[in-house]
Amino acid sequence: MSADIIDGKAFAEGLRARIAEAVPTFVSAKGRKPGLAVVLVGEDPASQVYVRSKGKATVAAGMESFEHKLPDTTTQEELIALVERLNADECVDGILVQLPLPKGVDDKAVIAAIDPAKDVDGFHIANAGKLAVGEEALVPCTPLGCLMLLKDRLGDLSGLDAVVVGRSNIVGKPMAQLLLQENCTVTVAHSRTRDLPGAVRRADIVVAAVGRPEMIRGDWLKPGATVIDVGINRIPAKEAGKTRLVGDVEFASARDVAGAITPVPGGVGPMTIAVLLRNTLVAAHARAGLPPPAGL
Amino acid sequence: MSADIIDGKAFAEGLRARIAEAVPTFVSAKGRKPGLAVVLVGEDPASQVYVRSKGKATVAAGMESFEHKLPDTTTQEELIALVERLNADECVDGILVQLPLPKGVDDKAVIAAIDPAKDVDGFHIANAGKLAVGEEALVPCTPLGCLMLLKDRLGDLSGLDAVVVGRSNIVGKPMAQLLLQENCTVTVAHSRTRDLPGAVRRADIVVAAVGRPEMIRGDWLKPGATVIDVGINRIPAKEAGKTRLVGDVEFASARDVAGAITPVPGGVGPMTIAVLLRNTLVAAHARAGLPPPAGL
Repeated sequence: MSADIIDGKAFAEGLRARIAEAVPTFVSAKGRKPGLAVVLVGEDPASQVYVRSKGKATVAAGMESFEHKLPDTTTQEELIALVERLNADECVDGILVQLPLPKGVDDKAVIAAIDPAKDVDGFHIANAGKLAVGEEALVPCTPLGCLMLLKDRLGDLSGLDAVVVGRSNIVGKPMAQLLLQENCTVTVAHSRTRDLPGAVRRADIVVAAVGRPEMIRGDWLKPGATVIDVGINRIPAKEAGKTRLVGDVEFASARDVAGAITPVPGGVGPMTIAVLLRNTLVAAHARAGLPPPAGL
Repeated sequence: MSADIIDGKAFAEGLRARIAEAVPTFVSAKGRKPGLAVVLVGEDPASQVYVRSKGKATVAAGMESFEHKLPDTTTQEELIALVERLNADECVDGILVQLPLPKGVDDKAVIAAIDPAKDVDGFHIANAGKLAVGEEALVPCTPLGCLMLLKDRLGDLSGLDAVVVGRSNIVGKPMAQLLLQENCTVTVAHSRTRDLPGAVRRADIVVAAVGRPEMIRGDWLKPGATVIDVGINRIPAKEAGKTRLVGDVEFASARDVAGAITPVPGGVGPMTIAVLLRNTLVAAHARAGLPPPAGL
């Protein structure tokens, strides 16, 4: 048996197309485009790439992109002052502060300063709390993207056994909340889990988000399981001096056992920016008192 | 084998004694007693009993109890106005609005009006969010009480398999978060779970919070498991016309398999008010800028 490949790239492209189709309705209603402000502090090369990609995708969807690049000497007070200006700016529907921030700047204080209604990363305490109690929330992009892939593949998730490997605030914990909302029986496993293969073997749905290359092996999987691999790890390739990207799941062996699996790259990765655009459009509608855009 | 009985009544008495010992230090530092305001709307008999017990326990611990009894014709606006006065009252460290509220009053709106720093029930979105991301939070009393009993019995919970049966916002979900913080591998099971006996059978720790009398049977348990029974269900007794209280676990059969088990009554029940007093004292210290009281 060879698992179906879950094509996150194609799904993300479809989602971005649906977002681009929904934008003009917002523009006619409000007389302006939905706007996403991205704040980048310092010169981290990976962050620069992410911010550029986000800006391009925002514009491609017909939305307004506001980029704020600050030197790595920016103080926490200066950064929070910018966030407050963006909170007050009626043209800004979403605010994303690219992490990591330079030393001496407290992530938590900066995120706490973002208006929860504009918190398109879903990292604010108020959104984490709403997700926890089952109220309408802005949900972190990566786990929401994983859920979309799962529902697209499986339909109703009710009653399925799901294991989330990893318990970060950005992926693992919100992923567990989302799967619980979908009526899965949810297990959160992590570095202290005694029998990780056993926990994985029971699961109809495996979400791997640990950041350890190829840790989860095919012989840990229940035959037919749906595997969502959030890991993106760069490891040495066979050719000297080259590298390649792998997930947290050993793809070659997993493919022989799973029913469906996301590849790395091209699985979960492309979903994150697409969901960011979706969250921005949803936030724009909510702020404007409009009903949420359909089908997103 | 017969399981050890986890004496929640005795543990709660000990906790209340430690709280009463800590109160005078606060009084000397601040020149006033820690204060808990309890708001009761309407005439629900069970609620009246709870509120009376809370008031008595608060005074017995050396703290100030403020009781606000409102008629069931109270509007949401009037109730929120009272909450706002209590938020502004420097002598009030904790605010508890007794649920359920009369029809036409939105629980969520009322709870959202409580200053999160005074939210000793831990029901505010901000506290749920802090708990979810692992920040210092005021945590709902019943699950925190369950955790105290577990740590008292087992010490370090790291690596243990825990199952939480039930996923309410008041018990199941915060319980799962607390056990995850203690490095348990945590499974949340519920009415849609396909193989509940199987999920329970794997667990070193079982927390039952479903509100279904004696649903979890002894032969579902892993031998030696620690069982925390949150359920309090009134069922007909053998004698005609009489009733008795049972938990969500079938005590007689569970006792033969478990390593330790909380009885009903006398297990988790007495912990809830003790933890409410603990949360009030902790909130008082935090609001006053004092370090948290030790050993609570």
